[in-house]
Amino acid sequence: MQIVIIGSGNVAYHLAKAFVLNNIPLAQIFGRNEKEVAKIAEELKIPHSSEHLEDADLYIICVSDNSVEDVSKLISKKDCLVVHTSGSLPKEILAGEYRKSSFYPLQTFSKSKELDYGKIPFFIEAENEEDKKLLFGLASKISKNVMESTYEKRKYIHLTAVFACNFVNHLFSRAKEISDSQEIPFDYFLPLIDETVQKIYEIEPKAAQTGPAVRNDVRVLELHEQLLKDESLEIYKTMNHSIKKMYEL
Amino acid sequence: MQIVIIGSGNVAYHLAKAFVLNNIPLAQIFGRNEKEVAKIAEELKIPHSSEHLEDADLYIICVSDNSVEDVSKLISKKDCLVVHTSGSLPKEILAGEYRKSSFYPLQTFSKSKELDYGKIPFFIEAENEEDKKLLFGLASKISKNVMESTYEKRKYIHLTAVFACNFVNHLFSRAKEISDSQEIPFDYFLPLIDETVQKIYEIEPKAAQTGPAVRNDVRVLELHEQLLKDESLEIYKTMNHSIKKMYEL
Repeated sequence: MQIVIIGSGNVAYHLAKAFVLNNIPLAQIFGRNEKEVAKIAEELKIPHSSEHLEDADLYIICVSDNSVEDVSKLISKKDCLVVHTSGSLPKEILAGEYRKSSFYPLQTFSKSKELDYGKIPFFIEAENEEDKKLLFGLASKISKNVMESTYEKRKYIHLTAVFACNFVNHLFSRAKEISDSQEIPFDYFLPLIDETVQKIYEIEPKAAQTGPAVRNDVRVLELHEQLLKDESLEIYKTMNHSIKKMYEL
Repeated sequence: MQIVIIGSGNVAYHLAKAFVLNNIPLAQIFGRNEKEVAKIAEELKIPHSSEHLEDADLYIICVSDNSVEDVSKLISKKDCLVVHTSGSLPKEILAGEYRKSSFYPLQTFSKSKELDYGKIPFFIEAENEEDKKLLFGLASKISKNVMESTYEKRKYIHLTAVFACNFVNHLFSRAKEISDSQEIPFDYFLPLIDETVQKIYEIEPKAAQTGPAVRNDVRVLELHEQLLKDESLEIYKTMNHSIKKMYEL
């Protein structure tokens, strides 16, 4: 089976690497960003192009949501399977006469950070049993965690991930901004952050909540508001309001 | 040296346990909640009372910020050291004629979750060198991570911790609320959450940011807003606004 990966961003890089590491040959990595594509191709020792899209049985589109539809039009072949890796797009966004599927890896990908691909949950949605079997087989070579998902469910999986990952990381950014401003090393907070995550393996997050808002400690909440401004102050107020609502304080 | 711990909540329990596990004898655990104090005392095999405060050289007050001042008035003795464990109170809130210090463990404590005490950063502020030495010696028996901190700095350490721990945990609660509503097991998100934290050991959180807001993916942001309501929608808007501001989008 000939497989082509389209894209040169974080997802394209890590998926291509996961395939190569699991001895799944790639016919090509294709992308408009010639420099990035060449860099990935060189590291993983796979063919690459920014001009000629290779003939393949399976095309895996790993580009930003805004570009998926346009990129999908580059594939004129009909007898092939085309998948995208987006959490929020229906498979029908793919604009060709080929078979269409969704192949969604639930993970946060940064090029400079190595990943244990075996733990990534993959969510698959296909048009027919044959394509489903093919994609399950492929994902199962990378991960032990392969599941089916409808578009309806996948949207909510992605939305949950935005709260549990993207927003959590942004809180780390704002936290570090505060500690940096006082020349407090952010390393001090790593054991606390580790424990915050360890806890939810054993306790429901709702039962694990600590801090001034859930104690309704008005004096501390007011003190903190005086120390904050702009976006961090907005986050502080919004989160405390939400905590108080959840615990009916 | 006679040491008494005052309180029966999460911090009192874990500090008492850390002392006992590190062979630092406790003269008493004292608290108004008779049932909770008795429970801790029984587990840790230490004396307890809800009525008679034992004579001691060091009193460690582990009660909620709102109660620290009142509780500190129970100690009529003058020739002793009294400390509180709050991140946000000055040591001067302690209302007696004894020596006063702050003994702040930077961690999230839940009774039902075991902890590796050796990794907890302790921040100490004392009136004189002797008390500082005493408290450093004590904390160093529990943890490898003992530092001095002024009240000014401690306030910001606590504030940073609220963002990096309390708010992160609340995001997990709201995330779980979303996945629960669609009968999506929250376990699916644990590898993603682990990776989100692993990343900040290697990459600055600002450089590690992923997700629709930092890509300014308007279509996805609008789709997500349609799926949300009430506090979760408020959090979604506030966090995305803050992300866009940070990356000047």
